[in-house]
Amino acid sequence: MQPETRRVEGFSDAVFAIAITLLILEIKVPTQGQDSLVDLLLRQWPSYLAFITSFAYIGILWINHHRMFSRIRKCNDVLLGLNLLLLLGVTVVPFPTAVVAEHLHGPDRRMAAILYNATFVFISLAFQALWRYAVSRGLLEEDVGLSAKRVSRQIMVVPFLYLGCVVLAWFNVHGSMLVNLGLTLYHACPPRLVSERISSSRDSRPAA
Amino acid sequence: MQPETRRVEGFSDAVFAIAITLLILEIKVPTQGQDSLVDLLLRQWPSYLAFITSFAYIGILWINHHRMFSRIRKCNDVLLGLNLLLLLGVTVVPFPTAVVAEHLHGPDRRMAAILYNATFVFISLAFQALWRYAVSRGLLEEDVGLSAKRVSRQIMVVPFLYLGCVVLAWFNVHGSMLVNLGLTLYHACPPRLVSERISSSRDSRPAA
Amino acid sequence: MQPETRRVEGFSDAVFAIAITLLILEIKVPTQGQDSLVDLLLRQWPSYLAFITSFAYIGILWINHHRMFSRIRKCNDVLLGLNLLLLLGVTVVPFPTAVVAEHLHGPDRRMAAILYNATFVFISLAFQALWRYAVSRGLLEEDVGLSAKRVSRQIMVVPFLYLGCVVLAWFNVHGSMLVNLGLTLYHACPPRLVSERISSSRDSRPAA
Amino acid sequence: MQPETRRVEGFSDAVFAIAITLLILEIKVPTQGQDSLVDLLLRQWPSYLAFITSFAYIGILWINHHRMFSRIRKCNDVLLGLNLLLLLGVTVVPFPTAVVAEHLHGPDRRMAAILYNATFVFISLAFQALWRYAVSRGLLEEDVGLSAKRVSRQIMVVPFLYLGCVVLAWFNVHGSMLVNLGLTLYHACPPRLVSERISSSRDSRPAA
Repeated sequence: MQPETRRVEGFSDAVFAIAITLLILEIKVPTQGQDSLVDLLLRQWPSYLAFITSFAYIGILWINHHRMFSRIRKCNDVLLGLNLLLLLGVTVVPFPTAVVAEHLHGPDRRMAAILYNATFVFISLAFQALWRYAVSRGLLEEDVGLSAKRVSRQIMVVPFLYLGCVVLAWFNVHGSMLVNLGLTLYHACPPRLVSERISSSRDSRPAA
Repeated sequence: MQPETRRVEGFSDAVFAIAITLLILEIKVPTQGQDSLVDLLLRQWPSYLAFITSFAYIGILWINHHRMFSRIRKCNDVLLGLNLLLLLGVTVVPFPTAVVAEHLHGPDRRMAAILYNATFVFISLAFQALWRYAVSRGLLEEDVGLSAKRVSRQIMVVPFLYLGCVVLAWFNVHGSMLVNLGLTLYHACPPRLVSERISSSRDSRPAA
Repeated sequence: MQPETRRVEGFSDAVFAIAITLLILEIKVPTQGQDSLVDLLLRQWPSYLAFITSFAYIGILWINHHRMFSRIRKCNDVLLGLNLLLLLGVTVVPFPTAVVAEHLHGPDRRMAAILYNATFVFISLAFQALWRYAVSRGLLEEDVGLSAKRVSRQIMVVPFLYLGCVVLAWFNVHGSMLVNLGLTLYHACPPRLVSERISSSRDSRPAA
Repeated sequence: MQPETRRVEGFSDAVFAIAITLLILEIKVPTQGQDSLVDLLLRQWPSYLAFITSFAYIGILWINHHRMFSRIRKCNDVLLGLNLLLLLGVTVVPFPTAVVAEHLHGPDRRMAAILYNATFVFISLAFQALWRYAVSRGLLEEDVGLSAKRVSRQIMVVPFLYLGCVVLAWFNVHGSMLVNLGLTLYHACPPRLVSERISSSRDSRPAA
């Protein structure tokens, strides 16, 4: 592994790890009041939904980022810049998560859900830009040529799917949140299947 | 060491490290008031108890996670997913810790202690799932076969022990917190003894 | 790569990663009120401007720090101390960022912008001290001798540029923030061009 | 380097890095009020003093921790436990730092300064326990035998020095804070001189 790639991965891992861990800070600890703690905790369910959705999203994005970089052999300044754009999206996630947690009950829930889903459109666009740049500049390992195209086709759809969530949020707030969570969990799969085919063709090589 | 495993460990280490360090943010700094600082600090003892218990738990869990991954040779997507489930539990810890710190004085202390102990049931189940999966799919080093079964037997008890704490919390809140802390400190031992036997049989090999 | 340098990089990377991720915590989540969420979110634009500027600054500083250390072969205590001084500047960034976010609307905006820009003067001085020390003590790789002088000349100007922002803040607060952001984005370039020349002369060597 | 030691260092580095970066969160951003921002910022000087002192302490402790572990060749469970005890001290630092920042003006400044200095007594005891254990169990590299004793003698004094600060805090609060900062900066030196002698004898060996 190139030292160059190694340190980019280390920095990215740390940013992913911090963003995923900071999410918990947005869940408020109910103070003693007139209602029982159980009631207070249950009333906070939008916080838990938003937390789980964002946690799953960042976690699975990390797996895919990890997978992508394990295919990247060379690194240049534009790639670093695009990676920074992706990390910008990742570090922002705790903010819309907190906005949804705060407003999913209230009159502004529609706007909160739109903001939340729009964040994921941005991130999936940045992810795509990163992958496409790496492919087009030949920064990948040489033997992933064919599979790379298949991955490109697959991840091309993702921003449109989250854009669909943005539109859905206008009509059905809770529906958009659930579809978003479903998309994220589904994401754990398709690129995985493809990359497994990649890695099986890879494992047939002598050694990594 | 496989680069694949290396980066999973790096990401997990960062999540553990952040979760363990964020715990301190939940301890409130007393502002100047009518009471003396000493009184205010002493009155916060539930915060310190919860902090120490959670710190010890995450720290010792890290040691065991570290130990487990030092035996894992291969990595696949399900393992990554299960590891993410474990990390979900770890990042959540600051929340029940803060709930206990806030409510161990108050009328809702029973519910706070149940929530706290239940978190550890979840984490120990996730830890077990991770280990069992790695064993059943042959992702471990080959020479830990026999010891692996012994470890499996040992960690099978752990969720039941913390479940005992959940039940105990219903009858005796402070008792459940102390038993929890005791369990954690005890945890530092049994898997250690086993793994030392593993590592001693390991050290007899030429080189790592 | 020397293990010594490796661990300094790892520690620095973590500090950069945490500082860049903590920035988001300074953006306040609007609570439900009389105004609509959209209005409340839009009214917070100074927070977003400050967030983006600081994110870009820390991100690009990380790239340059990364680049600098990839040229450093030896490490000593003074270098560690100077690196710590640079990291002091980096960890401080969330504070002036929050000050600007809070006061860019208010009567104290001039002072907030001066504080913000002054932080970057400090950091660029620390960066320069680090580089100059490494050059003067021969801690660099041997084949970057000529290029090193060019880099030294280039980064000598940087503190003066941010000092210009400090002065500009006295006359035009918003102007100074925009020039600051412009400078940061421009920074992504010039040292890059130089270092690309370095790395191209480097790539012509057999292997890293 | 052993992979075992490598991951302990990685985890420790992350904890140090997070603790040192979280310090800035304790500095409050003055909100708009009757007084000017400059007045409000200047009135917070105890926050800055506490921040700088704690930053320098954690930073220099990291350098020394780093230096210590670069001499440690083997790792066992007790060492991991003692290291965890040291990290407990490190993660706690933001709390007494915030207490000092809050109370250095007020009537409880004496107690705040005692708490602050006592934290450093605890940490230096944990550091010493770690080092002594590593020496006594032969976990160090073999060629540091003589120098190890010298280091042991030197760091034996440290807890007493910070204990002196605790006592001094009873009589002179500000004095104890300044002596504490002085001690920390001085710490950057003596172990350094020794370890330089170690590393010079080390550099004379063929290769690391």
